[in-house]
Amino acid sequence: MTVENALAGLHALLGDRLSRVKAEREAHGRSETHFPLTPPDAVAYPESTAEVQALVRICAGERCPVVAWGAGTSLEGHGLAVQGGVVVDFSRMAAVLEVNAEDMDCRVQPGITREALNTELRATGLFFPVDPGANATLGGMAATRASGTTAVRYGTMRQNVLGLEAVLASGEAIRTGSRARKSSAGYDLTGLMVGSEGTLGLITELTLRVQGIPEAVSAALCAFPSIGAAVDAVIATVQTGVPMARIEFVDIDTVAAFNAKSGAGMPPLPHLMVEFHGTEEAVAADAARFGEIASEFGAQDVRRAVLAEERNALWKMRHEAYWSILQMRPGARAIVTDLCVPVSRLAEAVEETRADIAASGVPGPILGHVGDGNLHAILLVKDAGEMAIAKALSDRMAARALRLGGTITGEHGVGMGKLPHMAAEHGAAWGVMGTLKRALDPLGILNPGKMVSQEG
Amino acid sequence: MTVENALAGLHALLGDRLSRVKAEREAHGRSETHFPLTPPDAVAYPESTAEVQALVRICAGERCPVVAWGAGTSLEGHGLAVQGGVVVDFSRMAAVLEVNAEDMDCRVQPGITREALNTELRATGLFFPVDPGANATLGGMAATRASGTTAVRYGTMRQNVLGLEAVLASGEAIRTGSRARKSSAGYDLTGLMVGSEGTLGLITELTLRVQGIPEAVSAALCAFPSIGAAVDAVIATVQTGVPMARIEFVDIDTVAAFNAKSGAGMPPLPHLMVEFHGTEEAVAADAARFGEIASEFGAQDVRRAVLAEERNALWKMRHEAYWSILQMRPGARAIVTDLCVPVSRLAEAVEETRADIAASGVPGPILGHVGDGNLHAILLVKDAGEMAIAKALSDRMAARALRLGGTITGEHGVGMGKLPHMAAEHGAAWGVMGTLKRALDPLGILNPGKMVSQEG
Repeated sequence: MTVENALAGLHALLGDRLSRVKAEREAHGRSETHFPLTPPDAVAYPESTAEVQALVRICAGERCPVVAWGAGTSLEGHGLAVQGGVVVDFSRMAAVLEVNAEDMDCRVQPGITREALNTELRATGLFFPVDPGANATLGGMAATRASGTTAVRYGTMRQNVLGLEAVLASGEAIRTGSRARKSSAGYDLTGLMVGSEGTLGLITELTLRVQGIPEAVSAALCAFPSIGAAVDAVIATVQTGVPMARIEFVDIDTVAAFNAKSGAGMPPLPHLMVEFHGTEEAVAADAARFGEIASEFGAQDVRRAVLAEERNALWKMRHEAYWSILQMRPGARAIVTDLCVPVSRLAEAVEETRADIAASGVPGPILGHVGDGNLHAILLVKDAGEMAIAKALSDRMAARALRLGGTITGEHGVGMGKLPHMAAEHGAAWGVMGTLKRALDPLGILNPGKMVSQEG
Repeated sequence: MTVENALAGLHALLGDRLSRVKAEREAHGRSETHFPLTPPDAVAYPESTAEVQALVRICAGERCPVVAWGAGTSLEGHGLAVQGGVVVDFSRMAAVLEVNAEDMDCRVQPGITREALNTELRATGLFFPVDPGANATLGGMAATRASGTTAVRYGTMRQNVLGLEAVLASGEAIRTGSRARKSSAGYDLTGLMVGSEGTLGLITELTLRVQGIPEAVSAALCAFPSIGAAVDAVIATVQTGVPMARIEFVDIDTVAAFNAKSGAGMPPLPHLMVEFHGTEEAVAADAARFGEIASEFGAQDVRRAVLAEERNALWKMRHEAYWSILQMRPGARAIVTDLCVPVSRLAEAVEETRADIAASGVPGPILGHVGDGNLHAILLVKDAGEMAIAKALSDRMAARALRLGGTITGEHGVGMGKLPHMAAEHGAAWGVMGTLKRALDPLGILNPGKMVSQEG
C-alpha cells in the first residue's frame, strides 16, 4: 500500500488529468498565509462525481491522503496536503446545473466561483448573497462555512446550503437535504458537511438558496466618536429590527489606509459602513431609522450613498481594504486574523486587540462584520521575527475570543492555524468531533492532520 | 443487566423523583396521534445536568433505554418508550438561566415551555419567535427541529439554537456552539443535535437567539380565486424581498371551519393570512407592497388588521384551527399530517392532496406555512377503518412530497410515523445516520427504535 500505487491507479483513471508536474504541485501547495510550501504528490482534475468516487476508492485501497481544493483562497491552510497524497482540484466541475427562479434556489458543481455564479444568475434577477471577499469556489466556501459582509442579513454558508452531494471516504456518494426550505427528517447531514473542511467527504454538488436582487439598495458611511459608540449604535439598530444587509466596522488605521489609497477624505475616527436592501419605501424608511439611531450615538459626517456608483465606490473601498492596508507598509505581507464574540463584548475585543497590536510593534488595522460580532486584524509583517509576533498576537486573539464568550474563528475556519485552539474552545465536544471523523473516515484518508485530535 | 437493576440504581439516585406509578407512566406513554399507549417502566425527574449524567451512566450499565420527554405535544410519537426503559421528564429543569438583551440571546433549561419563556422575556422587550402552535418545551422543540408560522422570517429551531449542552450515551456532558452569532470552528455539533430526537444525547441546556419585539406589526387576510393564484402571490412576494413575518395558507374547508367556529364570514375561497414586523414606516410600506402583489393575482376581500385586537383575533383563529376543524366532525379525532415541498410545487401538492382526501371519504382540511412550502392536512377519523385510510393518505403525502422534490416532514419530525419513509427520502445518507448513531450511542440506549435503521 503506497502513494505510488495510488498514483498509478489514478493515472489509469484520469490520464492527463492527473498531474505530477512540479509547478502544478507547488501551485496546490501554497496558502494565503505563513505556512510553508507543501506540494502534494499529485493534483487530480476529476470531471464527474463518478470519477471522484473512483478516485477515493483507489486512494482508500492504498491509504493515500485525499485533499479537496477550490480556489486556494483559504486563509488557514485548509488545502495543504500535510501528509502528502493527492489534491483534488474541482476546476473542471464548475457548472451551474439548474436554476429554479420561483423557488429561489440553484444547483451547482463545487468548482464554480462566487463571481461566476453571480454572473450566470444575473439574467434571472437573482443573486447568491454570501460574500467572503475573495472569489472563492462555492465548494470551498461550503467546506469552510464561509460568510462575510452580508451574513448579518442573509446568513453564512450554513444557512444558504439547502443540500449537497458528497463522496465519503468509502467512495459512496450521498445526497443530503432537498429543495424544500426546511425539513425535520433526521440528522442534519448538510449541516455536518458544511464546515467540515474536506475531512468527512468531498462535496461534489450543492443546492443553494439564492435571493432576489433587491429592488432598492442604499448605503451609508458614518464616523463615530469612539469604538464603543459605533458598537452601541450597531446593538441599538439590530434590536430595533431594522433589517441591515451589511454593517461593517473600520478602525482609524483602516480609515488611514482608505484615505491614502482612494483619497476618501474620511475623518480619523472609527466608522461604520452600512447597507440596506428592500423595496424603495422600506429602504428609505430603514436608512432614515438608522440615521436617527446613529445620531443618538454621536455619529458625524454621515454620507449616504443612494446612487449605484456611490455605493460601488464605497464597497470597492471596503473589499479592497486588504490591498489598501498592504500598501501602508511596502514589502510587508499580511496575516489576516479572525475572531467572533457576542456583540456586547465587541468594543472590548477591538480595544484590547488594538492595544495588544500597538504594544507589539507590528502594524495591524482592524475591521470587521460587526453585526455578527466578527472582526479581523490585518497584521503587516516583514520578517521571521515579526511573523512570530503576528502568530502570538493571533493566538492571544483566539484566547481573548473565548474569554469573551465567543469563538476562535467566525468565518475563516480551522485549517492549520486554529487547530491548536480547538481543545480550548470545545473541550469534550472536540473529542466527539474525533469520534464522528473516525466513524465516517476510519482510515483517515480525507484531509488528514486537520480538524480533529491526532491522538484519540 | 436488567431494567430492574437500572431502576434500583435510579431510585437510589433520585428517590421520589423516580416514579413507577401507573398513572404517571401512562401519562408518559401517550401521544397526540394514533400510536397505542406505551407506558415506560418508570418516569424520572432530574433537577440538574449532573443528575442526568448519573442517570445515563446507570442506564448504560444496565442497557436500559432512556427517552427524553418535554411537554408530550409531539405529533409523531417521538417520546414513546417503544423498547421500555425510563422516560426522562424535564419539567424540573425549566429555568431561564440568563438573558443577554444586548446580544439578543438567552440561556435556558430544556423543560421551559415556549409560552413561559416569552412571559419571562417580555419585560426585556425581546421574544422567542419560533411558534409551533402547541405550548411545547424548548428542549422538545430543539430535539424535533420544530418551526411553525414564523419560520419564513425567523427560521426554524435549527437557526435559533446558538449552542447547547447535551449528555451523551456515555454520560459525558458536552457544550456545543457559543454565544457568538456565527463560527467556523469545526463540525456543527449544535446542528447535529437539533433534530436528533433524543437519539444522540439528552439536551440539558440551550442558548437561543431571541428577537426584539417589533415596534410595529400589521396583518392581513385575503381571499384568492384559486390555490394556484394564492401560491403565485406568495412566490412573487418572496421574490420581491418583502420580509414577511408569516404567510399562512388555508383552504376552503379550513375557511368553513373558521366561519362555523368564529363567524368570520370569510368567502368560500382559499385565503392567505400574512403578517409584517418592523418599524412603523417599513411595515406600512411592506403591507402596501404585498397588497399590490396580491391584487395582481386576483386577491379579493383584503382585510387589514393593524390594531392589536384585530390581529390577535386573526391569529387566534389560525392557532385554534385544529380545534375549529375538530368541531366540524363531533366524535372524531384528528390525525395531523405534514409535508414540505419547493414553493413552485406547492399548488400541485395542495391540489393533489385535496383530490386524494376527497376520494378517501375522510374529511381533511388543509392549511400550511406556505412561505416555506410546508402544509398540513388535518384528517378527521372516527374508527379503525378510517384510521387505516388516514395512515394511507399520510403515506401517499410523504411519497408525493418526495416526488415533488421535497421532504416527508417539514416540521413534525420522524418519530414513529415517518420512520418507514426515511430510506425513500435519504437513500444511502440514511445509512450514514445509522453510522453516526452507532458511533455516539454504541449500546443503543438513547430513544431506541427511532430515527435510524434497526438493521445495519
